[in-house]
Amino acid sequence: MQLSSQLLEKAVSAFAKLPGIGKKTALRLVLHLLKQAPEEVAQLSEAITRLRSEIQFCTRCGNIADGPQCSICLNTGRKQQLICVVESIRDVIAIESTHQYNGVYHILGGIISPLDGIGPDQLTIDALLARIHTEKTEELIFALNPTIQGDTTIYYIQKKLQDHPIRVTTIARGVAFGGELEYADEMTLARSLQNRLPIDRYVNSR
Amino acid sequence: MQLSSQLLEKAVSAFAKLPGIGKKTALRLVLHLLKQAPEEVAQLSEAITRLRSEIQFCTRCGNIADGPQCSICLNTGRKQQLICVVESIRDVIAIESTHQYNGVYHILGGIISPLDGIGPDQLTIDALLARIHTEKTEELIFALNPTIQGDTTIYYIQKKLQDHPIRVTTIARGVAFGGELEYADEMTLARSLQNRLPIDRYVNSR
Repeated sequence: MQLSSQLLEKAVSAFAKLPGIGKKTALRLVLHLLKQAPEEVAQLSEAITRLRSEIQFCTRCGNIADGPQCSICLNTGRKQQLICVVESIRDVIAIESTHQYNGVYHILGGIISPLDGIGPDQLTIDALLARIHTEKTEELIFALNPTIQGDTTIYYIQKKLQDHPIRVTTIARGVAFGGELEYADEMTLARSLQNRLPIDRYVNSR
Repeated sequence: MQLSSQLLEKAVSAFAKLPGIGKKTALRLVLHLLKQAPEEVAQLSEAITRLRSEIQFCTRCGNIADGPQCSICLNTGRKQQLICVVESIRDVIAIESTHQYNGVYHILGGIISPLDGIGPDQLTIDALLARIHTEKTEELIFALNPTIQGDTTIYYIQKKLQDHPIRVTTIARGVAFGGELEYADEMTLARSLQNRLPIDRYVNSR
């Protein structure tokens, strides 16, 4: 792409570094910004700067926070003895969007994946185990993606907790609502047969 | 979407204002930025600020420029008596990418479209006519989108130039390279039949 301005060129290449944004989309975004009021553009620029320089990560659960602890951990209305273990901040946001969960979180920062060179030491598993001991956690809910890596991670943490009196559960896997049986993969279908529910529990959970 | 940080929320809504970017994509971009080195993020932020505050529009053709005139107008190697008339900056970039054009441009800033309330006065047509007189332009190439509005604009400008000795052309319309005849619309196909080329000119232009 041949651009007649250095400033334009710089802005386009900065945008094109973002994931899923190519040169053409970057140009569209930049030309859009040029048409906006200067205050609006300054707002975007300031939000980006402050985001990177001021944001912190919760010392307890690893979530994004404006201070040393995140708003979820600081919320005394939530059950502090119920921890939901997730891979990333994105999963916290997904679960929070359901408005169904009232405990706290622990973000692993990834899952055990030897092929990608990620072992237990690269994750916050030790911090989780320490938390469980000091906070007297009653239940641990695993909400990891249903992959072999996810299952390995669950298995690893569960083994470490063998001698500890704590309830360990995992979110249900099965055919998604609105999904069609014929398009579900064999693994999901097989698991949802194995873990079938009595019909009265199913009716009550709707 | 439920976010646990004010800073995160602000950055996501600033990104979500960009065209074609929804809340979910905005969140993905912001979480990506959080993982980047601070210098990289500062670069994006600075590029945005400088873009909006320092960029200028060429006083001659309306293109984006780092100074009072754009690099295309300042390039003495280009034919200054050949003006290509386009609708927007995006069209300049598209034509420049072909590396086939060696004249200068004139950006109209839109096309005549009474339904959208855009008349000749909202466009830079007067500036174009003044330019043609003072710069002793030899040829005007219209590179407007092949719509009724585009054709109206061409017709309007051409009428204003009736008494002026200047060559006026328009880019060729026809079936695109790689396009298939059966999928071309009737208008395009009819026009490309009317404006058929002698085969020796076609071979030479390849």
